[in-house]
Amino acid sequence: MSLLVVGSIGLDDVETPRTKRTNLLGGSAVYFAIAARFFTPVQMVGVVGEDFPAEHRQLLADRDIDLEGLEVAKGKTFRWSGKYLENMVDRETLRTDLNVFGEFDPKLPPAYRTADYLFLANGHTSLQLKVLDLMEQRPKFVVADTMNLWISTTRSELDILLGRIDALVLNDSEARMLTEEHELLRAGRAIQKMGPSIVVIKKGEHGALLLSHDDCFILPAYPLDEVIDPTGAGDSFAGGIMGWVASSNDITPVGLRRALLYGTVAASFTCQGFSLDGLLNIDRKDVDKRCREFREMLQLPA
Amino acid sequence: MSLLVVGSIGLDDVETPRTKRTNLLGGSAVYFAIAARFFTPVQMVGVVGEDFPAEHRQLLADRDIDLEGLEVAKGKTFRWSGKYLENMVDRETLRTDLNVFGEFDPKLPPAYRTADYLFLANGHTSLQLKVLDLMEQRPKFVVADTMNLWISTTRSELDILLGRIDALVLNDSEARMLTEEHELLRAGRAIQKMGPSIVVIKKGEHGALLLSHDDCFILPAYPLDEVIDPTGAGDSFAGGIMGWVASSNDITPVGLRRALLYGTVAASFTCQGFSLDGLLNIDRKDVDKRCREFREMLQLPA
Repeated sequence: MSLLVVGSIGLDDVETPRTKRTNLLGGSAVYFAIAARFFTPVQMVGVVGEDFPAEHRQLLADRDIDLEGLEVAKGKTFRWSGKYLENMVDRETLRTDLNVFGEFDPKLPPAYRTADYLFLANGHTSLQLKVLDLMEQRPKFVVADTMNLWISTTRSELDILLGRIDALVLNDSEARMLTEEHELLRAGRAIQKMGPSIVVIKKGEHGALLLSHDDCFILPAYPLDEVIDPTGAGDSFAGGIMGWVASSNDITPVGLRRALLYGTVAASFTCQGFSLDGLLNIDRKDVDKRCREFREMLQLPA
Repeated sequence: MSLLVVGSIGLDDVETPRTKRTNLLGGSAVYFAIAARFFTPVQMVGVVGEDFPAEHRQLLADRDIDLEGLEVAKGKTFRWSGKYLENMVDRETLRTDLNVFGEFDPKLPPAYRTADYLFLANGHTSLQLKVLDLMEQRPKFVVADTMNLWISTTRSELDILLGRIDALVLNDSEARMLTEEHELLRAGRAIQKMGPSIVVIKKGEHGALLLSHDDCFILPAYPLDEVIDPTGAGDSFAGGIMGWVASSNDITPVGLRRALLYGTVAASFTCQGFSLDGLLNIDRKDVDKRCREFREMLQLPA
């Protein structure tokens, strides 16, 4: 089944205690697509500026990501720069320049408008709503991500969005902020009452909680020997989930549990390399192999 | 198989954002024993002062905890007081008065000296070593807990202890402190190299990591709607683990995975009540019922 993502495509400057690199290909839609493509082709809607390097575009095209929906606008590409602290979990956002992404007026190529699976990656809530409006028919499964910025600045639009999506993916602090509930089980249930019957709460290195209808599933993160750069882990987590569900066409609670495994494994590879490196140097076989190893670590004997 | 615990028995003053109570029965050996007794009888070695309330002693006796090893010494009972912050995870220790526990010279009743399973609950490292020396024969399975205080003040004794135990249970920050490794997988492996072939790293509300020989097992915590008081959660986690292994007499990696489930569920009940209330108001059936529910939440479809 077809999978469409809309979100940011950007240039990242990332600094960790050991490394600093600039002008990296980044953005929520990019990390999502690079993870989802292990499972299914991906259509990508986004905007870049005239400064967007040709090799970044080539990299995406080489990974079978459909770029018909990638608009080049006058101006500069979205830029983000961040610096990780010694624990490789906490980070400081040094700069966010929306540039052409700030005024992005999305256009959907005709082939995109009937996508079965739609992921509204992290970006302005009004952009997420606009893309939903542009769909010729309501996709089978619509999932959105959001962040603290949109929760605090676009709350009324977010409330409308929550009524129109099947699932919301967000991190623990965002879930607490959105619901004013501290315990994640309560926060998740409160979000379900706001609209989406499915909620995925990301806990970073501590895994994720999935509430789908009455089902509750808890999955730890894949344990790593070393975290090189966690940038994009959350977006590739969503990419693994959506890539799997679009390829299996299974959005039952059981299917979603399985999808979370693939999302978690995709995110683990992301953290093992700088920028996109961890995801670019592997193929589907590596993903499946780690899924089998991870299942072993989670196996609870009868 | 017989299970022996040595550790602190104390009077706690606990304050949460919603409640404050004083002179509560507490201590590492107490929380351990109250959780372990769901599975097997427990022998307890410890010391209290002349001020130890008769009703606290009665409470333990009523739960079939063998108090032959409970010494009453001249002076005051060990006291701890702590205050939890709004997130119910972080806490401030307001006061620790070792009192009679500070000079405790343990004596083991003859029946205790051949215990098959021994848990050296959190307490001075030299006390843990002394108890080991007093055993008539080396128990089948010796497990110790420790904390930041002993890691920093009794490191050389701790190194000796690590060479004499089968398993170490400690929390994530302590594992990092002991090994100077940030990633828990690395920290756990480094501890295995120090002696114990089994390491359990507790991550509080994020679950636990078990390394036993070459086996690696990850278990999240049981998700709670509300945390009332997490005091003693780590000790009752160990109690559930040791109670289960002593009753099943299974210390294989598979058996230990199962034991972690019981420990996690015991800890979850602890957090749901103030002080020991969450553990006192339930029976084995409640533990088994929650284990079944928890298994459902963890079930990863093929």
